[in-house]
Amino acid sequence: MKQILLSHGGGGEETQKLIKELFFKYFSNPILEKMEDAAVLETGSKLAFTTDSFTVSPIFFKGGDIGKLAVAGTVNDLSMMGAKPLYMSCSFIIEEGLPFEDLEKIVSSMAEETKKSGVQIVTGDTKVVPKGSADKIFINTTGIGEIVYEGISAHNVRERDVILVSGTIGDHGACIMAQREGIELEGNIASDCASLWSLVKDLINAEILIKAMRDPTRGGLSAVLNEWAEQSNIGIEIEEEKIPLKDEVQGMCELLGLDPFSLANEGKLILAVPEEDAEKALEIMKSNELGKDAQIIGKAISDYRGKVILKSPYGSKRILEPPAGELLPRIC
Amino acid sequence: MKQILLSHGGGGEETQKLIKELFFKYFSNPILEKMEDAAVLETGSKLAFTTDSFTVSPIFFKGGDIGKLAVAGTVNDLSMMGAKPLYMSCSFIIEEGLPFEDLEKIVSSMAEETKKSGVQIVTGDTKVVPKGSADKIFINTTGIGEIVYEGISAHNVRERDVILVSGTIGDHGACIMAQREGIELEGNIASDCASLWSLVKDLINAEILIKAMRDPTRGGLSAVLNEWAEQSNIGIEIEEEKIPLKDEVQGMCELLGLDPFSLANEGKLILAVPEEDAEKALEIMKSNELGKDAQIIGKAISDYRGKVILKSPYGSKRILEPPAGELLPRIC
Repeated sequence: MKQILLSHGGGGEETQKLIKELFFKYFSNPILEKMEDAAVLETGSKLAFTTDSFTVSPIFFKGGDIGKLAVAGTVNDLSMMGAKPLYMSCSFIIEEGLPFEDLEKIVSSMAEETKKSGVQIVTGDTKVVPKGSADKIFINTTGIGEIVYEGISAHNVRERDVILVSGTIGDHGACIMAQREGIELEGNIASDCASLWSLVKDLINAEILIKAMRDPTRGGLSAVLNEWAEQSNIGIEIEEEKIPLKDEVQGMCELLGLDPFSLANEGKLILAVPEEDAEKALEIMKSNELGKDAQIIGKAISDYRGKVILKSPYGSKRILEPPAGELLPRIC
Repeated sequence: MKQILLSHGGGGEETQKLIKELFFKYFSNPILEKMEDAAVLETGSKLAFTTDSFTVSPIFFKGGDIGKLAVAGTVNDLSMMGAKPLYMSCSFIIEEGLPFEDLEKIVSSMAEETKKSGVQIVTGDTKVVPKGSADKIFINTTGIGEIVYEGISAHNVRERDVILVSGTIGDHGACIMAQREGIELEGNIASDCASLWSLVKDLINAEILIKAMRDPTRGGLSAVLNEWAEQSNIGIEIEEEKIPLKDEVQGMCELLGLDPFSLANEGKLILAVPEEDAEKALEIMKSNELGKDAQIIGKAISDYRGKVILKSPYGSKRILEPPAGELLPRIC
């Protein structure tokens, strides 16, 4: 009997397959099939609409908690569409027996995080299920934003476009793994969990031409770049040593045999801009706290169409495969 | 230590308390605090926005399944606000090992149910959690609708307004209980799970003045009428024998000691209209399959403000208390 596996929820190839072969089969419509971070709705003004369920374990982690993550995650999906976050729904599935204090910490952290982007939580739902029917708490947030910048798309990357990343890669995934495995590392890996709207707003206000933009959550940098390479039918060449990576994260990845480029981020964005806008975009990002470690990491090329190439400092090249198989479950 | 209890998710008094004392405390804003079935957004056109997470167990039941319920439930919340359902997000939390066939049945049933109202599923999310971290499948649907009829509110009920119900009461709750307890009754109790938009549309098109309208889900008829009595500061007098109730549902309630007026419905609406519109509203409802068993069940009165009074055929009166305590968990 065919069963749902953890890999179906990992955000990698199997998830894509499930979406295309099951959900599109039944729910098919042109808005859904765009497969961007949020649906684009035309209802008077142009709106972006996006949903995410958060099941992260542990629910409290260094740098955040499930509540902060639930707000930032949905704010980021809207931001990546060039949409100013306006409204959010919030739905809790809570396991009976959760300490009230934990719920209050989560709710207060959500409220705090909404202030970063100005999004308002305007409707909600609460379900409590018996012990053992859920693990502590799951949160769904669904957001509506007003599209203030149009034309961002994974299909838009062209030869010579420059690829930037807003900061160090893999922090969220490494933090969750470290806490789960009980690993204490020097330097203390913390989640990068953050609402990216202010950074996106800065780029828009500076009139940077944003061709593609995505927050590398499940599947990490590798998933985003591979999606762009495929959907834009272009090669993407990345200089490996330019990718910002914390020593502690690299150390933990070596220890556990993980690929940092596939690890989830929750407060970073990947950007593709025309060559002539690259330096200015870098400067804008660096002047915002959320982008202080930003780097230009590579460019789009006409060779290797549909592929992502990692170039080592010594000139050797390897293909960065899209993440597949059992990615970390309950990372977000 | 104060813990979250099943009653916090039951839709009764404790849920109200949690919402007001915790969620409003942190998320406070005028849109949220309206506490209607959906938030009202002004973004060009006037939109309704609503969210619900579905955790029903069993996931397949007579008359529907968790997928049909997830679509109908959110369509109904929009419809109750006079909003034409337009767009829906759909987010799955799936327990590893769920048979793929079950997921496909659920997804196909969702697609089927969207046709009843014309709502489109335009964005989604899938998380898979390890065995034991969730029970089979939870679905969140969040809907956006265009408000085509304004002014419906739980605050609007006035003396002499007439209260109608669109059909038999308690079917969904009784069906879920019967299946959970393994009770086989003659007559086969089935869930009333249905999308009510077409019925609401008929009422709007017939120019019925809709003062209050609500679908009596968790907490049933009793929760809705008590909310109206309180929020409109009016008495509501119901003639008990006029409330449509299936013999099988009544039998099961007697057997298990349940109150049918507190049982969940998923395809019924309660309506308050001015006296002069009552007969026409009844006729409109009866001419739609979804309202064929509709009845006028009572009226708003100036005595007993804030209370719901049940009148027996023999003239005796009792107060219908709002549901409280541990309502059935995982009913929707």
